[in-house]
Amino acid sequence: MNIYADNAATTKTSRTVIDAMLPYFDKFYANPSSLHTPGQEAMEALTRAREAVAKCIGAKPNEIIFTSGGSEADNQAIVSAAMIGKSKGKMHIISTAFEHHAVLHTLDKLEKEGFKITLLDVHENGMVSAEQVREAICDDTCLVTIMYANNEIGSIQPIKEIGAVCKEKNVLFHTDAVQAVGHVHIDVKDENIDMLSMSAHKFHGPKGVGVLYARTGIRLTNIIEGGAQEKGKRAGTHNMPAIAGMAVAIKEACDAIDTHTPKIVKMRDKLIEGLLQIPHTVLNGDRYSRLPGNVNVCFEGIEGESLLLMLDMDGIYASSGSACTSGSLDPSHVLLAIGRPHEIAHGSLRLSIDYDNTDEEMDYIIEKTKKVVEYLRNMSPVWSDLKKGKREYVIQ
Amino acid sequence: MNIYADNAATTKTSRTVIDAMLPYFDKFYANPSSLHTPGQEAMEALTRAREAVAKCIGAKPNEIIFTSGGSEADNQAIVSAAMIGKSKGKMHIISTAFEHHAVLHTLDKLEKEGFKITLLDVHENGMVSAEQVREAICDDTCLVTIMYANNEIGSIQPIKEIGAVCKEKNVLFHTDAVQAVGHVHIDVKDENIDMLSMSAHKFHGPKGVGVLYARTGIRLTNIIEGGAQEKGKRAGTHNMPAIAGMAVAIKEACDAIDTHTPKIVKMRDKLIEGLLQIPHTVLNGDRYSRLPGNVNVCFEGIEGESLLLMLDMDGIYASSGSACTSGSLDPSHVLLAIGRPHEIAHGSLRLSIDYDNTDEEMDYIIEKTKKVVEYLRNMSPVWSDLKKGKREYVIQ
Repeated sequence: MNIYADNAATTKTSRTVIDAMLPYFDKFYANPSSLHTPGQEAMEALTRAREAVAKCIGAKPNEIIFTSGGSEADNQAIVSAAMIGKSKGKMHIISTAFEHHAVLHTLDKLEKEGFKITLLDVHENGMVSAEQVREAICDDTCLVTIMYANNEIGSIQPIKEIGAVCKEKNVLFHTDAVQAVGHVHIDVKDENIDMLSMSAHKFHGPKGVGVLYARTGIRLTNIIEGGAQEKGKRAGTHNMPAIAGMAVAIKEACDAIDTHTPKIVKMRDKLIEGLLQIPHTVLNGDRYSRLPGNVNVCFEGIEGESLLLMLDMDGIYASSGSACTSGSLDPSHVLLAIGRPHEIAHGSLRLSIDYDNTDEEMDYIIEKTKKVVEYLRNMSPVWSDLKKGKREYVIQ
Repeated sequence: MNIYADNAATTKTSRTVIDAMLPYFDKFYANPSSLHTPGQEAMEALTRAREAVAKCIGAKPNEIIFTSGGSEADNQAIVSAAMIGKSKGKMHIISTAFEHHAVLHTLDKLEKEGFKITLLDVHENGMVSAEQVREAICDDTCLVTIMYANNEIGSIQPIKEIGAVCKEKNVLFHTDAVQAVGHVHIDVKDENIDMLSMSAHKFHGPKGVGVLYARTGIRLTNIIEGGAQEKGKRAGTHNMPAIAGMAVAIKEACDAIDTHTPKIVKMRDKLIEGLLQIPHTVLNGDRYSRLPGNVNVCFEGIEGESLLLMLDMDGIYASSGSACTSGSLDPSHVLLAIGRPHEIAHGSLRLSIDYDNTDEEMDYIIEKTKKVVEYLRNMSPVWSDLKKGKREYVIQ
């Protein structure tokens, strides 16, 4: 049995999305910036795609900027807000310790340019509160950027409440919603979101395309300089096949949320309950305010990488955290942010499932994971010490 | 008859390229940064694609950075060289007045940050010389960035000679080769190129993917911050379908240069000779050091936009200059750079043909263009004044 349970890393492009893209490769392939008829036909397709994306998140079409993906959108949102702040002498930015690196590394860069960055502590359940945001905002604050749902532990933040605080305090609010769009209902106006980033390949759309939503009136700073595309705010020939595919993918995903969610949540909960039966195992992220498809647990006494390799041999394709940092030997900054000690953070397993997974697959994953954890623990000197009482369990 | 003659704006994705991309959408769709088997399979495909691209330009695989396109590659090359220069106290950059806006606008940004920019004059035939570069280089120069072939007038620059001067003077040399790669043979080592930008959709590859070649040892600055992809120098999930497609497209294009060029050049020359039979018409760009598929002429006494619209009605899809600036009413900065007066620059027509065009199409274009130019001139008050001798012809 081969089970893909790494949908937070990337998803399979759906058949309808591929079919929507195909004509733009060799039939309607003209550059939408060209004035001739085929160019203008491509421009009309671009306009329709923009309208479709906007509608899915309650935005207006002119508030949608197409980018090369979520990372670029995050970079542009944060740099833009920082430049607006700087022009007003406001150089303080609030974020959290468990953001994606597309956010954290952009903040690092701004810190070197003289911005002051406050990273809010994340509660052990993977949540930050609107109250924390309120307390951190000062007269110099130009931006609050907090992710909609964490990419590793799946915890969904109180975005509407955080947005309300920002609105009240007149501070721009950006949310990295790369893991959330297409999986939970989002309405940027209702949730007081000024800027939002998303990436198509996280909801069965193509890779290489994303969107920055920026509320009307927010002056954007270019990340990529050049041609006059996207009102001069994002240069480069429009990636029409991908943009057309993204428009279909987001509508398909958003329309299906109410149908898919109960099925996915049922599988997720079965998986969580099954894995928590393994002794000295802890769930990472909130039990309820959680992405439908996210499971993330730490097993005491084992190395996550060995676990992954053995599950892989059983045909289970999972991850220990973010794919974007898979080359690193450091423990997940997300797990450290929620207070897991280093040795526990190293024993993490993320399973991210979707509507195309099955109940039988969950049984298989539970069965195999139990066996593999037991096997690895039997070989682990740490586990041996724990059993002999030479060291104390961190996870009870 | 419908004739696509705007291949400099974008090309049709070739069938073999589409076929190469398809498996990566829904079969080998895993994230190459994932540690599991499907992820590692994707990583192997990424490695193969990198090797294929490197080979086509005489580079090493580790000198290839995949980007979202040519604009991003231009931005990253220039910003990187500028940051290296700054760290050594060298803040002078040399470029030309007729670069693409991805270069010029990046230079504008650097000028605001304190860099000194020298834009070399372009000769009337659309050429700059290595001697001009030599004269402009001073002790503070950190970068020379000159395009390989101009996107509007097609003139191919003496890149190897310019590169040799830069090498001798120990100054980094970047070339925007977006219009050249896949159309002329390029060898970065032989031509003394330190950095080079390219874009797949200009040689029948997909949109949304490009490459920055950067010689080993050049420290790159991120344009997009985030995950550890591309040795930490370009964040964002790898766009595997597009990267796999680009690898096929560049090999296909480079392998076919010697076969396609004579055919394309023959059509181009027929077109140039036919159009120059129209009185008071001038060719823009060098007659010989020129991209195989580029034709660019100015007709005195008419507006390029009206010409385009009328050719469009005849099924001829061309442009007046760059698609990236099509929203602008200003005359082409390229034509101004080669000394065309405003009123002449407004009457430009670019036809960019490729191997899939035919000899019959050239005849048709010549016939229709003659008629349309005559028609528009008959309606033009400027033309009436010229004929009556009330004003003097600029183009003899």
